[in-house]
Amino acid sequence: MGVVAGDGDLPLILANKARADGAEVYIAALKGFANQDWHGFETQTFAVEDMAAMCVWFHDVGADAVTFAGSVKRPDFDYFQPDNLAVSAQDALHGAAQQGDDALLRAVISIFEQAGFSVIGLDDIAPDYLVKTGLWGRKSAYGGTEADCLRASEIARTIGAMDIGQGAVVAKGVVLAVEAQEGTAAMLSRCAALPAALRGTQKNRCGVFAKWAKPEQDRRIDLPVIGMATIKAVAEAGLSGLVLEAGGVILLNPEAIYETAERLGLFILGVQAEA
Amino acid sequence: MGVVAGDGDLPLILANKARADGAEVYIAALKGFANQDWHGFETQTFAVEDMAAMCVWFHDVGADAVTFAGSVKRPDFDYFQPDNLAVSAQDALHGAAQQGDDALLRAVISIFEQAGFSVIGLDDIAPDYLVKTGLWGRKSAYGGTEADCLRASEIARTIGAMDIGQGAVVAKGVVLAVEAQEGTAAMLSRCAALPAALRGTQKNRCGVFAKWAKPEQDRRIDLPVIGMATIKAVAEAGLSGLVLEAGGVILLNPEAIYETAERLGLFILGVQAEA
Repeated sequence: MGVVAGDGDLPLILANKARADGAEVYIAALKGFANQDWHGFETQTFAVEDMAAMCVWFHDVGADAVTFAGSVKRPDFDYFQPDNLAVSAQDALHGAAQQGDDALLRAVISIFEQAGFSVIGLDDIAPDYLVKTGLWGRKSAYGGTEADCLRASEIARTIGAMDIGQGAVVAKGVVLAVEAQEGTAAMLSRCAALPAALRGTQKNRCGVFAKWAKPEQDRRIDLPVIGMATIKAVAEAGLSGLVLEAGGVILLNPEAIYETAERLGLFILGVQAEA
Repeated sequence: MGVVAGDGDLPLILANKARADGAEVYIAALKGFANQDWHGFETQTFAVEDMAAMCVWFHDVGADAVTFAGSVKRPDFDYFQPDNLAVSAQDALHGAAQQGDDALLRAVISIFEQAGFSVIGLDDIAPDYLVKTGLWGRKSAYGGTEADCLRASEIARTIGAMDIGQGAVVAKGVVLAVEAQEGTAAMLSRCAALPAALRGTQKNRCGVFAKWAKPEQDRRIDLPVIGMATIKAVAEAGLSGLVLEAGGVILLNPEAIYETAERLGLFILGVQAEA
C-alpha cells in the first residue's frame, strides 16, 4: 500500500496500522509537510506537484492501492508546476483548483486512479479511528446543549456542502464562528476573544463545537481530524463539548481523546448523518 | 421622529438628514453604545433594556415614528432585566434571543409597534445612503473577478439566510473567511494573515469581499454598514474589491467611500438581489 503523507500524526498512525494488519507500506513523504519519523518504512520524498513521479515509484515498488493522509496547504496555482503529468491532467488540476478544495482533491484522486491505483480511505484501513455514534467524555455536560448541537451540526453540514469549511461554534442559539481557510485552532481562539456575554467560560461552560465531513466530498480523502490539540482548544474557548459526525470525522487517538475530554469537563457526541 | 441610537456614525448622519428634511428628531441614546455628540438634539439616555421607558418618552415628546441606527452588542440574556415591560414582552425577548439575532430584532421591533409607533428604516429616511446598482471606485480592478464576486455573494446570502452573518471573502474560487460574531474587521484582518498563496497582496490584488443583507431579515433594522474603516481593511487584506447588495447595504459616506476605493485601487460593485 502506498501512503501519500502530509503533515500531522495521521500518516504514521495509519501506516503502522496497515503494517500491523500485514500490508507492505510505502511512504511518499510530501516535502514541506510530512514531518513524521519514517524510520523503518520504505520512504521517498516528493514535492506536492510531483504526482507523476509518485505514481512511477508506487508502480516500481509494487503498490496497487494508495491512500492520502495528513494535511497539505493549498499550493499557489499561479506558480504550480507539476512534473511530467499529462497536459490534460495539468489542465484538470488547474481548472479544479479554481472550483474549491473538493474539486481539487477529486482531480488529484483521479490522477492516481488513471495511473491504475485503487484509492482507499481510512474506513478501509483503520475504521476504529472514525468517530462512533454515542455520547463520550463528560456525559453530564451534554444536558441542555441539544439545541446548540443541532444548530451547530446543521451549520457545519451546510458550509461543508458549499465547500467553505467543516467547523462551526454555536452558543445559546448564536453562531459564534464559522471555519473557512483559517483552520480550527484560529476559529476556536477567536471564540475565546468574543464578549463574555456571548460565550461560555472555563468555569461556566456554554456552547458547542461541531465538525462534520462535507456531505458531498469523496470520503476517501480529506476527512476532518480531531486531535488532542483540538480538545484542549475547545476547553480553552469555554465550550461545553463537541458534536461530530459519526463515521465522518477521524479521532487521532480515540481513547486518549475521550479521557481528556472527560478530565476537562467536555462531552463528545457522535451523531450519524441522515442518509 | 424617534431615533434609538447605538454605536457608530450612522445615528447622527441619519438624525441630521431627517432634521434637514423637516422632521422633529428625538434621540434615545443607548448607554454604553451611543457615542455621538448629540449637541443640538433633544436627547435622553437609556439602558438597552429600558424599552418601556423609551416608548413612554417617545410618546411624551410626540414622536410617532421610530427608527433604529447604530450597532449594539448583544446583551447577556442571563442577566437581562428589562424595565417595566409587560411580562409577555419580556418572555418574547428572552425566547427570541435563543433563536438568533434576527428573531431578537423582530421581537424588539414588535415591542415598539405594539406601543403604537410605526418603525421605519433607512430607505424611508435616507435612501441615498444605500448602495446603488453599478460599478464604482477603481472600475478596472473588477476584470477577472466575476466568478469570485458571484461565489462570495452566494455565500454571503446563504450565511445571512442562516443568521450566521453577512460577510464573506473569496479569492481564486476559495472561500477564505466567513463572518459570524467576530465582525468584519476581525474577518478581514485574518484574511491578511493567511498564506500568501491563498490571497492577494497590496501589490498584486486578488479576491473579493461580499456584504449582503440577510435575505429574510426585516429591512427596517440592522442593515449592514460599510464605512471608511471597512474600505481600508479590504485594501490592507490585499483584496481587489467589494461586492455589495444594492439597496441592502448602507454606505456611511458614499462619495468619500467611492473616492477612497478608487485611490486604494479597489472596485465597489452594487448588485441587485434577485427577487
